[in-house]
Amino acid sequence: MTTTTTAPIVLTEVDTDSRIVTVTLNRPEKRNALSLALMGELIEVLRDVGSRKDVSVVVLAAAGPVFSAGHDLSEMTGRTVEEYREIFDRCCELMELVQSIPQPVIAQVQGIATAAGCQLAATCDLVVAEEGARFGTPGVKIGLFCSTPMVAISRVIGQKRAMQMLLTGQLVDAPTAADWGLVNEVVPADQLASRTAELAAQIATASSVVTGIGKEAFYAQISRDQHSAYEYAKTVMTMNALATDAQEGICAFLEKRQPTWSDR
Amino acid sequence: MTTTTTAPIVLTEVDTDSRIVTVTLNRPEKRNALSLALMGELIEVLRDVGSRKDVSVVVLAAAGPVFSAGHDLSEMTGRTVEEYREIFDRCCELMELVQSIPQPVIAQVQGIATAAGCQLAATCDLVVAEEGARFGTPGVKIGLFCSTPMVAISRVIGQKRAMQMLLTGQLVDAPTAADWGLVNEVVPADQLASRTAELAAQIATASSVVTGIGKEAFYAQISRDQHSAYEYAKTVMTMNALATDAQEGICAFLEKRQPTWSDR
Amino acid sequence: MTTTTTAPIVLTEVDTDSRIVTVTLNRPEKRNALSLALMGELIEVLRDVGSRKDVSVVVLAAAGPVFSAGHDLSEMTGRTVEEYREIFDRCCELMELVQSIPQPVIAQVQGIATAAGCQLAATCDLVVAEEGARFGTPGVKIGLFCSTPMVAISRVIGQKRAMQMLLTGQLVDAPTAADWGLVNEVVPADQLASRTAELAAQIATASSVVTGIGKEAFYAQISRDQHSAYEYAKTVMTMNALATDAQEGICAFLEKRQPTWSDR
Repeated sequence: MTTTTTAPIVLTEVDTDSRIVTVTLNRPEKRNALSLALMGELIEVLRDVGSRKDVSVVVLAAAGPVFSAGHDLSEMTGRTVEEYREIFDRCCELMELVQSIPQPVIAQVQGIATAAGCQLAATCDLVVAEEGARFGTPGVKIGLFCSTPMVAISRVIGQKRAMQMLLTGQLVDAPTAADWGLVNEVVPADQLASRTAELAAQIATASSVVTGIGKEAFYAQISRDQHSAYEYAKTVMTMNALATDAQEGICAFLEKRQPTWSDR
Repeated sequence: MTTTTTAPIVLTEVDTDSRIVTVTLNRPEKRNALSLALMGELIEVLRDVGSRKDVSVVVLAAAGPVFSAGHDLSEMTGRTVEEYREIFDRCCELMELVQSIPQPVIAQVQGIATAAGCQLAATCDLVVAEEGARFGTPGVKIGLFCSTPMVAISRVIGQKRAMQMLLTGQLVDAPTAADWGLVNEVVPADQLASRTAELAAQIATASSVVTGIGKEAFYAQISRDQHSAYEYAKTVMTMNALATDAQEGICAFLEKRQPTWSDR
Repeated sequence: MTTTTTAPIVLTEVDTDSRIVTVTLNRPEKRNALSLALMGELIEVLRDVGSRKDVSVVVLAAAGPVFSAGHDLSEMTGRTVEEYREIFDRCCELMELVQSIPQPVIAQVQGIATAAGCQLAATCDLVVAEEGARFGTPGVKIGLFCSTPMVAISRVIGQKRAMQMLLTGQLVDAPTAADWGLVNEVVPADQLASRTAELAAQIATASSVVTGIGKEAFYAQISRDQHSAYEYAKTVMTMNALATDAQEGICAFLEKRQPTWSDR
């Protein structure tokens, strides 16, 4: 069963058969600029998706030729400190939400992903990009250094490469972005949606309870020192091992049969 | 002089001439699954090796076609919380021990290194793999997300690549693992043991006092912020410079002669 | 206008037209070894440069065939604990200063960059190297493990690659260093200076106020956990957005004209 809700700036398509939700940035005429309104709508959609038990994976797509050109510059001139603060608060809230919902989020990137648009892609758990996609943090050229994008990007690629992107503002092509670890897969443009769907479907074969445990654990452990990461992770493993889906999954494996997850 | 001790599940071969110990996982019929007993034995062996002054390098090898398939799933069903906790406690103890003994540990990987087996390879200081070796964290497929392996793996390869391994459970071949920084060298299968021995021998030409200082410093500084890492490391350097082997090594270099280390 | 100050061991060339300062290690006959005197002079020069408002970018170059062979070993034998401590204190002060001055620093590397010389390159914001350049941490061979270089290097390349460099002491060629993320660009030897100057000039087209904000933010956020990095970075973004150069830059972009920065 497929139901589609059309909102002005964010489209949400829920496929309860495949357990995949496709969330689409839908301001193509504005290069999917992350206006306050679009960020607010996306936060609302992701919060709703995050609470659903019938969804295993989120694909974050974009309408038109461009993934996202970052913040909406028309909202960036002549504002008060409170107004700027609101924009960056909402932006950080969005980025942290992408990583805190239980479902893995796959960015499906075509064209350009720049500034906060590059940050959004870098923040998703996985990134699939078409061959012509390009990534960049060009804020330095307009006097607004990409300091919040740098938080996501410098944690995904190396320090020198992050500095190069940030200081030159130059675009990095998809194969280079893959080489640097920002992109998981580069595919021909005409296979972007199908390959992303295939990857999503493969992840959706797992128990969503289990991928939710794993995703939460990943971000909880990554910024701890290794010893405290292990202290935390071994408790997660113990609790996971006791869960119905682990007992079912291990028994199914030992009995050479397909498991039946509790979420189906 | 070479002495060999044969234990049921872990073999230890000490070569006091080359100062290399080869520790071999020896449950080939169980794909070297890390049962509680095997982990216990390996901990005991590594503790013993760690206290030896006549050993410079450890090679961690595996008997049979597979390096290690991870935890022993036959110990993973129908257990109590205390029993699961014991397994993951022992696993984390093993992994931290590999990094806390003074001798560098080189994983010599053939076939498959999956789940805690992949974690064990990722935890070793260096990894040599044969061309056909493959690495993976397939726990997600059996309902038990590889949350403790993720601690080691996400610190060695990038976040996106770690997420890809963890969420898909798919195997990564040796050349890709090398490209991602999980493996140091990929060699033809028939040269795996000889090339690993050669690397071990090269490291064993150094003073074991000095490699011990360096290895301890590496893991002590890696999870600190850079400033406190420098505060710590400059004290290590000062103490190292005062050590007999540094004074000998620097003088030998300036006098264009071979140094004679205090451990020989 | 170009003014040149010649000092015995560090040369400083200020080009106020291009807003680029070239600082040159000038002990070629000593392979630009980082003696206490050279480190002291370099610290003084960088402090001075850091306080200048008419400089946008620093190129850190080296006279002769070698970038730097690291500490001066003739200062490393038979000293007291206080003397060793002074050397490593000054070394860490130098490295932290390279990252704390507001101008981006580009290392221009030919020949060999080893031990503290490799650390110095790894510490610069960007690195351009000629094809034949090689990088290494050979201290292990002379009994003095490269524990302070490891702080910089292990934060720039992966753990396994850092361990390989540190434990074997072997040199890594420029293309490999680029593959590992230690070097940004590899160019033919006869284009090293011109390509570095081109990169510096490109970065110097940006507002130096803005690159200064960005560089400070980069190193302030990199060792925080992601959430506190965002808390910090969103305040930086808000303040940056209010700055004259951001307002000018965004307006110029929207009006499709070149911006005029406040520092010109």
